[in-house]
Amino acid sequence: MIFACHLQERFQRAVGEGDLPAGTDPGLLARYLMTVGNGIAVQAAGGATRDDLQMVADMALRQWPST
Amino acid sequence: MIFACHLQERFQRAVGEGDLPAGTDPGLLARYLMTVGNGIAVQAAGGATRDDLQMVADMALRQWPST
Repeated sequence: MIFACHLQERFQRAVGEGDLPAGTDPGLLARYLMTVGNGIAVQAAGGATRDDLQMVADMALRQWPST
Repeated sequence: MIFACHLQERFQRAVGEGDLPAGTDPGLLARYLMTVGNGIAVQAAGGATRDDLQMVADMALRQWPST
């Protein structure tokens, strides 16, 4: 899971730099993003449209931690 | 996508009965739930633990529409 590790490191850095709130769990955030991405890939392979999946992505990001 | 259709119909009913807010999009909510579920299945196949995926599911449901 190399890409997930890179994501986690980047989110850790973002917490350190104040771009993500101090209480953010970088590992969970990375896992969440990968999970949604995997799910979108499955849905796309199953024939979901770009517009449908854009709305899903928007919904998934609605509770992204903000400073 | 039979199961997604059942979900959409159930969410539509929930909107009608006031169990989901009036502005809820039943189709989007069904698609979102299927996408997260697909992603969790991919992560599980890749070796993610139950605890990890429980946290992802909790995070995905944090912005579930409530009345």
